[in-house]
Amino acid sequence: MMQRFFFECAYNGTPYYGWQVQPKQISVQETIEKALTKLNSKQDVKIVGCGRTDTGVHAHHYIFHADLPSHFSNAEQLKYKLNKMLPNSIAIFDIYPVKEEAHARFGATNRTYRYFIRQEKNPFEVHTSTYFPKDLDIAAMNKGAEFLLGKQDFTSLSKLHTDVKTNICDVRKAHWFREEDGRLVFEISADRFLRNMVRATVGTLLDVGLGKIKPTDIPSILAAKDRGEAKISAPADGLYLWKIEYDFAQIKL
Amino acid sequence: MMQRFFFECAYNGTPYYGWQVQPKQISVQETIEKALTKLNSKQDVKIVGCGRTDTGVHAHHYIFHADLPSHFSNAEQLKYKLNKMLPNSIAIFDIYPVKEEAHARFGATNRTYRYFIRQEKNPFEVHTSTYFPKDLDIAAMNKGAEFLLGKQDFTSLSKLHTDVKTNICDVRKAHWFREEDGRLVFEISADRFLRNMVRATVGTLLDVGLGKIKPTDIPSILAAKDRGEAKISAPADGLYLWKIEYDFAQIKL
Repeated sequence: MMQRFFFECAYNGTPYYGWQVQPKQISVQETIEKALTKLNSKQDVKIVGCGRTDTGVHAHHYIFHADLPSHFSNAEQLKYKLNKMLPNSIAIFDIYPVKEEAHARFGATNRTYRYFIRQEKNPFEVHTSTYFPKDLDIAAMNKGAEFLLGKQDFTSLSKLHTDVKTNICDVRKAHWFREEDGRLVFEISADRFLRNMVRATVGTLLDVGLGKIKPTDIPSILAAKDRGEAKISAPADGLYLWKIEYDFAQIKL
Repeated sequence: MMQRFFFECAYNGTPYYGWQVQPKQISVQETIEKALTKLNSKQDVKIVGCGRTDTGVHAHHYIFHADLPSHFSNAEQLKYKLNKMLPNSIAIFDIYPVKEEAHARFGATNRTYRYFIRQEKNPFEVHTSTYFPKDLDIAAMNKGAEFLLGKQDFTSLSKLHTDVKTNICDVRKAHWFREEDGRLVFEISADRFLRNMVRATVGTLLDVGLGKIKPTDIPSILAAKDRGEAKISAPADGLYLWKIEYDFAQIKL
């Protein structure tokens, strides 16, 4: 008998070539699959993540699912063993059984990313936020961010040639705020995200903050449906998958 | 005409083989000397640090001095150029002229180190605190720490075969406390520290916290004057030179 489990975790993306298994590079997925396979008496365990994250991108909250023999019913014990086996850069917070049709990727109802910028040099934030030591017009950046809201085509703010059928995303939240510690944060929530979308959006809004383009240029950038319209992508260091949501009433056992 | 300057800085020790210049490895000192030499029309600049830090040890507050031609009188401009040239892992906070006899190492009157421990797995603290997921008796560790206070011989809590003349240190503060974010911190202040002293002290006090030894074992460990008496050193990741003090009324111009 197999049982499907959801795993809630966080990872530091710096040492990994992204979430997804790569032929010759170390990925978060492969690292976790290897640990679970060891714990499963070396019987292969495959996991399905809530989404891909690129090289160096972090996850503050990430969910994946796996089907395990039902003798893994002690989730606390499995969590303890898995955390001991995994490197310090990956932490498992919670493991719980779910219905067999529950799916970490297709079941997600809302995804939130945060992008962290430090404007002062901080040696202890080298890979956990992006250093951007320039004055920024936050009000203009928030004005620009408002134009991202709603169901729109985000072709202009994504990587070309991806294999998705539609580039329409429903953006429910998009705003900048300052943390107590001084870091500047961009938060964006949507039903789905295209490849490179958050970093392209942050890069474009930073150009708004620098006065290089106007907040009101955002609608025409989106309307062009052409990646060349947007600005350079912001680096991976500052980006975190922040929160992933499900209709848990339908999923949990 | 040459002018002596004090430089206040912080650095992340993870990418460096310690403060001091090493024959074949990258050090913080060499990284800064190379940048200052470039800014000084490629005329060699040598710097003198307030002390050595080992491989991987961080500095939250570090002071070094350098003698520069007096045309470097604009300290703000020098700070800006130097920070731009230095990697993100080294930040210069302040630069100011001092009397010619001021000395970053010999003039220091008090040194404070902090050691950070996280008891929960945190992927974003991999190299900035030490992961130690065991229950600790903080009250016992603080009782043990009290025995470190005063002028005592710290041979038992230092690396053997160092070239110093005396192993007497005047410890003025030694206590554990918990940060708001849950991290456990050991803070220790003294006139001077021996090689490996803080890490050996933390390792020994962790054994007190685990109940492997008693707080009242600390005096006999010190009295033995034998490194074999103390326990394993705590790792470098959690250690920060936290604060360095001078009699600034005697030093500043």
